[in-house]
Amino acid sequence: MLGDDAYVCAMPTLYDYPFSGNGYKVRLVLRELGIAYEYRALDILKGHTREPWFLAKNPAGQIPVLELDDGACLSESSAILVHVARGTPLFPSDPLSQTRALQWMCFEQSNIDGVISRARFRRAFPDAIPTRPEEFAAWLSEGHRALAVLEGHLSQREFLVDDAFSIADIALYAYVHCADQGGFSLDTYPALRRWLQRVRSRPAHIAIDDVAG
Amino acid sequence: MLGDDAYVCAMPTLYDYPFSGNGYKVRLVLRELGIAYEYRALDILKGHTREPWFLAKNPAGQIPVLELDDGACLSESSAILVHVARGTPLFPSDPLSQTRALQWMCFEQSNIDGVISRARFRRAFPDAIPTRPEEFAAWLSEGHRALAVLEGHLSQREFLVDDAFSIADIALYAYVHCADQGGFSLDTYPALRRWLQRVRSRPAHIAIDDVAG
Repeated sequence: MLGDDAYVCAMPTLYDYPFSGNGYKVRLVLRELGIAYEYRALDILKGHTREPWFLAKNPAGQIPVLELDDGACLSESSAILVHVARGTPLFPSDPLSQTRALQWMCFEQSNIDGVISRARFRRAFPDAIPTRPEEFAAWLSEGHRALAVLEGHLSQREFLVDDAFSIADIALYAYVHCADQGGFSLDTYPALRRWLQRVRSRPAHIAIDDVAG
Repeated sequence: MLGDDAYVCAMPTLYDYPFSGNGYKVRLVLRELGIAYEYRALDILKGHTREPWFLAKNPAGQIPVLELDDGACLSESSAILVHVARGTPLFPSDPLSQTRALQWMCFEQSNIDGVISRARFRRAFPDAIPTRPEEFAAWLSEGHRALAVLEGHLSQREFLVDDAFSIADIALYAYVHCADQGGFSLDTYPALRRWLQRVRSRPAHIAIDDVAG
């Protein structure tokens, strides 16, 4: 039986792999919105996300998963970001602006996550998946093309959509800020570096290794 | 000067590469919604999407791009689908259902488009980007894992979200229906094949090679 001063506060649970920028996106938006969460660290290299209990939460076997108070499990970081930010200033209300935010998040998924993040992972864990030099070279070329697109966009504005900080900035920040770990120098992207600094200077900002709920 | 019976009907223009499943997604949703469009076929293999006039429409240099009546250019197929389907029965109104639709579209982008579509492209144009057998083998394994996730989900329902046809079904159909061209047999996925047939039997359905506006 619970005492007088005990209370049960249902809060979402974030299943994450601490190295993952995709999980970091979710942590950043939860912090921005002041939503407390339980944190469950899993190790994808040890197969935790392929265990039956996790596949019941996300049959795709991928983190991040955000389990809501009612037991609903959300997967895919971009979808999670929209879900928790909907109706807040972090997701614009104007339809075209919403579309622009989604557009940047999709751009990130293919051109940053699929490229810069992959190079970062392969460099950090060279034994996990053997990688040939030609693969790194292809990612370097693709990744710099994506960074140049971002540089061009941000050279004319403060944030990605409507000059207001949004989940699009969170989604792009997650892997761009650690692009150097994938072998990408940001030296030639001054607007991009200024934007990183703007995102980093937000009061609710946390570093990628800060996994406290 | 326009005659009495002449009229100017501004309509969106779809910039597409006819082989692309991503462009096909946009054509499918426009047809479903009865939106007429101009069609501009570009050849990515000939560098059309890297020409300055196209980069002005999408700096990422990727099709599809949907240019709206007012000149706004939308890119990223998932974002385009949300934009044109918003407020229609093709995009659910319930927030959690909207999130589920986004979740499936993101799943597709990483696990189908990035895998099955890639294998299909490399098989169709073997000289464009040399591909090693090991790469095909890795895609085969990844792609079948994604198809098995879909099979599990669709074995219990008619459509991906809320048992109602939506842009999520359109987004997944585009590359799954031609998975065989990527070397993926769907023989062991009966629920998936029934779902493909349900999508195909919609009155507004068109084949991937039907590019008429």
